[in-house]
Amino acid sequence: MEMKDSLLNNIEYPSDLKKLKVEQLPQVCKELREFIIDELSHNPGHFASSLGTVEITVALHYVFDMPNDNFVWDVGHQAYGHKILTGRRKTFCTKRKLGGISGFPNPKESDYDSFIAGHASNSISASLGMAVATKLEKKDNHTIAIIGDGAMTGGLAFEGLNNASICDNNLLIILNDNHMAIDPAVGGVSDYLLKLTSSPRYNRIRDGLGGYISDERKGKLTRLTNSVKSLLGKQQNMFEGLNIRYFGPSDGHDVVELVSLLKDLKRIKGPKLLHLITKKGKGFKPAEEAATEWHAPGKFDVETGEKIKAIQTDQPPLFQDVFGHTLLELARENDKIVGVTPAMPTGCSMTYMMHEMPNRTFDVGIAEGHAVTFSAGLAKAGMMPFCNIYSSFMQRGYDNVIHDVALQNLNMVFCLDRAGLVGADGATHHGAFDIAAFRVVPNLTIASPINESQLRKLMFTAQLPDKGPFMIRYPRGKGVQKDWHCELQELTVGKGEKILDGEKVAVLTIGPIGNTAAKAICELREEGINAALYNMIFIKPLDKDLLREIGKKFNRIITVEDGVRNGGFGSAVTEFFNDNDIPMIVRRLGLPDAFVEHGSPDELYSICGLDKESIKNEIKHQFSAL
Amino acid sequence: MEMKDSLLNNIEYPSDLKKLKVEQLPQVCKELREFIIDELSHNPGHFASSLGTVEITVALHYVFDMPNDNFVWDVGHQAYGHKILTGRRKTFCTKRKLGGISGFPNPKESDYDSFIAGHASNSISASLGMAVATKLEKKDNHTIAIIGDGAMTGGLAFEGLNNASICDNNLLIILNDNHMAIDPAVGGVSDYLLKLTSSPRYNRIRDGLGGYISDERKGKLTRLTNSVKSLLGKQQNMFEGLNIRYFGPSDGHDVVELVSLLKDLKRIKGPKLLHLITKKGKGFKPAEEAATEWHAPGKFDVETGEKIKAIQTDQPPLFQDVFGHTLLELARENDKIVGVTPAMPTGCSMTYMMHEMPNRTFDVGIAEGHAVTFSAGLAKAGMMPFCNIYSSFMQRGYDNVIHDVALQNLNMVFCLDRAGLVGADGATHHGAFDIAAFRVVPNLTIASPINESQLRKLMFTAQLPDKGPFMIRYPRGKGVQKDWHCELQELTVGKGEKILDGEKVAVLTIGPIGNTAAKAICELREEGINAALYNMIFIKPLDKDLLREIGKKFNRIITVEDGVRNGGFGSAVTEFFNDNDIPMIVRRLGLPDAFVEHGSPDELYSICGLDKESIKNEIKHQFSAL
Repeated sequence: MEMKDSLLNNIEYPSDLKKLKVEQLPQVCKELREFIIDELSHNPGHFASSLGTVEITVALHYVFDMPNDNFVWDVGHQAYGHKILTGRRKTFCTKRKLGGISGFPNPKESDYDSFIAGHASNSISASLGMAVATKLEKKDNHTIAIIGDGAMTGGLAFEGLNNASICDNNLLIILNDNHMAIDPAVGGVSDYLLKLTSSPRYNRIRDGLGGYISDERKGKLTRLTNSVKSLLGKQQNMFEGLNIRYFGPSDGHDVVELVSLLKDLKRIKGPKLLHLITKKGKGFKPAEEAATEWHAPGKFDVETGEKIKAIQTDQPPLFQDVFGHTLLELARENDKIVGVTPAMPTGCSMTYMMHEMPNRTFDVGIAEGHAVTFSAGLAKAGMMPFCNIYSSFMQRGYDNVIHDVALQNLNMVFCLDRAGLVGADGATHHGAFDIAAFRVVPNLTIASPINESQLRKLMFTAQLPDKGPFMIRYPRGKGVQKDWHCELQELTVGKGEKILDGEKVAVLTIGPIGNTAAKAICELREEGINAALYNMIFIKPLDKDLLREIGKKFNRIITVEDGVRNGGFGSAVTEFFNDNDIPMIVRRLGLPDAFVEHGSPDELYSICGLDKESIKNEIKHQFSAL
Repeated sequence: MEMKDSLLNNIEYPSDLKKLKVEQLPQVCKELREFIIDELSHNPGHFASSLGTVEITVALHYVFDMPNDNFVWDVGHQAYGHKILTGRRKTFCTKRKLGGISGFPNPKESDYDSFIAGHASNSISASLGMAVATKLEKKDNHTIAIIGDGAMTGGLAFEGLNNASICDNNLLIILNDNHMAIDPAVGGVSDYLLKLTSSPRYNRIRDGLGGYISDERKGKLTRLTNSVKSLLGKQQNMFEGLNIRYFGPSDGHDVVELVSLLKDLKRIKGPKLLHLITKKGKGFKPAEEAATEWHAPGKFDVETGEKIKAIQTDQPPLFQDVFGHTLLELARENDKIVGVTPAMPTGCSMTYMMHEMPNRTFDVGIAEGHAVTFSAGLAKAGMMPFCNIYSSFMQRGYDNVIHDVALQNLNMVFCLDRAGLVGADGATHHGAFDIAAFRVVPNLTIASPINESQLRKLMFTAQLPDKGPFMIRYPRGKGVQKDWHCELQELTVGKGEKILDGEKVAVLTIGPIGNTAAKAICELREEGINAALYNMIFIKPLDKDLLREIGKKFNRIITVEDGVRNGGFGSAVTEFFNDNDIPMIVRRLGLPDAFVEHGSPDELYSICGLDKESIKNEIKHQFSAL
């Protein structure tokens, strides 16, 4: 898109923005919004959130002084505008691509990215640390956290608020309230914020505040509080209850007003919160009307708002959909089954069950720890919860799995979606650690299906009586079976399967990466190399009988997994042979001891040595070493 | 203690309690309190908390009907009275001893223990699950969570509250407010509760409520709210803001009043919270006056309140004290050092620094996730945080370590106190998983000192520039050096040390268990068995040069660690030899793939095969297998 006489084209850094007059900022916002819409229409990313924060971003950079000041964006879906205004307009087209800029704020990428932002609700804690450091070092720079109302449901945000009130700090928290997480925000906090914004309510301008604010602004701040009304009605202000000064609610799309407000708040000491009302997808009609759908919509036509789908002929389904349909199918048969998700019903496809059985599905908000412990309570009372949490977010529930579930050996199912490398979302979102972290937890069963029908069978098996806590991990995206709707049948817990016969070298895999290994092995047949393939299915318990059999028959083993090598599935296999005095060289293929960046899954698996060619090379290498 | 005409002696189960008249309950409370004081004076345990909940416990069991109804005690320090009234009075003397009853509620022990309770803040989430299950199953039993104001600062509690407001449930939350965690409770929530209890405040009796309450009770409930006053002053009610009906504050030591209150609340539908004010240590003067000191005081004289110390001659210090003194020493030299603890300043001995440098130490409340991310913010802004968290509680911060610290490779120090088996606190508190869980995280350095002076050197090393995130784990209790106050000097990261020469079999240890191994090896010298001993110090990075050297020199290796065998230090050593094609049999001694119960550390280490004799046996076994 060409923009003549563009203001945006002359902004490389915030210092350029600051040269403009306040009256020009609405034009900057318009251009920034158009830029984002245009870019994302052909280079997909997180869309609706970033449109909602255009004015906040422009106003913040106009008033504050990065990178001397710190902005901590919560989650960072919101931060595209910020990236564009801080030296990355020209590289914005590389966003989320291999070697390109990250989709999230990342300090490694730019000094203007104050803190990492991939997992929700960390902004208040992190920015409070920075704000306290400023005080300790007797500096006078500012720290601002920008957090959505969805992220505000996370316990970490609450812990941050609780602590903010007793530390010496001047933190400014901007609550970007669009009544949405990815799906609509849920819970008392969300209801509470909604009431704060929609009801008459008394907002005290504290004594100390008056002094800092120019007389002309005083009037405006008071106006924002919708005038003095009685609190005897319905409202209380939770934030002021926590000793954090509350301002707002104010219109998050009025950039001129925002500049004035922020200038005033800049002078106010102590922790404070500015509550802004925004619209997710603001300025792009289709996204305004269906924000969940437009959270990360893929490519689309800017004029019509029509989404451009890759040609889909007779493709296999997403693992997510297989999960969603199978869960509903199981729930129809087993009335003990309930579904629990922390703010991801659409992403994990629990929506199918949610629509048919709204009273048996629970979106608990962005609150992974609670999702696990709440499920534990349900299980303790005899229900059979399917708790679906993305692998990397399940790190938030690690203690809850150990303490609240495994220790009591409760019968329930964890479904770890987005296991393995997720691609464009990058290091914060890869499901790299779950195998290694959870296989050490007693009582847990951990499995990963090689394909869609095996996912169905594992889900069926997991909900049968007395299976204890049962964890099933599977990746984001498509499987391999067009015809996935197999009959539901029980799998024996702890039993793997032989996929391909072979000699001397056996490849042991876990999860869908077994399909890549199968292709590698089949292609090598033509070269006369006959490796065997075993799909172990279960990481825990390991199929010891099968391993013993393999130990007798083969000289060398290659393990393949889409999780970290250290401590992972291959490590478990190595432990087994070592413990049982079975001499065996085990080559462990998996993710490195490093954070893997963003790129397409294919690119990343290739870089990590987990693509077909790498597996072929390893097999050849092992045969040549015999 | 003999009690003639005792009411308590005739109560085996709550059904016996229910036979009494309400007027007799104060006497039951008196006897129960005396029983607890007497028992704990010679069989130590969590003292002050349990004294504070005597009346709540008696009233709950009088009004509700366990085990049909569910009580979920948060943390469970509070639950001694509950245990005594539910079939465990006679076995109470076995509390926390090997084979005896647990110090915490434990469903494996009794149907009257509805849920596990060792880590704070889980009660609302767990009980909400139960209350929702009751609704789904169309049952009419009651679920009650009993949570302290300290635990209320944990984000998990907040996530539970947030969710409680939108689920269909009749949960009753009892907020046991004593203004204390173990140390005094901190943060906005705590201040907030204090204000709620000490100021005039308007408490609405909602429309729907009136119908359920008898006329005579209506008056009392209204009185409890200190009469109708204007909210325009200082107070807002956070709980009602979250759509959870709030009742109180009321006197948590007036058992007759409590019974009336609970009977009324029993009939009220929907989620509700009863705010009770209690005194930690109630009824035992010395404990009332110094609750932190009397949290778990050890043995004491009932008459004088004097604590009975084991004879301490010239003993080595606690690792905790070495940490505390060394931290202060380092902080005096390095003004970037700050201390962060989640509600454990006394337990971890950060109190020394706290007293001298109150503005550089941060007790953030029971909020492990926040403690880590707050530290990350401090580190990002150039400070050098020492974040001290007990090993098992650090499970709560797993994602924060990965996402907020390791991913950004921040320079900061984690001190994992209570690593390994802690003893009497049992399964919920053992620091069993940290090595396995954290060694898979990129960028982390993980070390464990064999003794006090090595702890000091590791702490000194960790705070030197550009060391990245540095984790030091050490156990609860005494070390081995009377003269621990060595000079501070840098250790080379990733370098282990040879302790004892030997041949054929090498023992590789991590942490203070190396001292046990040293004794084992020395005793075997007399039998002509000469095993070598290496203290590896670093779990990550492993000392690969040393391992190569060991690989050349020895035929067999025994690894010893006080963490889980699966995926732990021994697993890392096994991986190394396997990856480097060095044929080596590695015998891995460590904790089993099961939750270890309570008992003395010596007993438990013996059971787990980690005592001196077990190590001797394993060495002999390996020599005989040569």
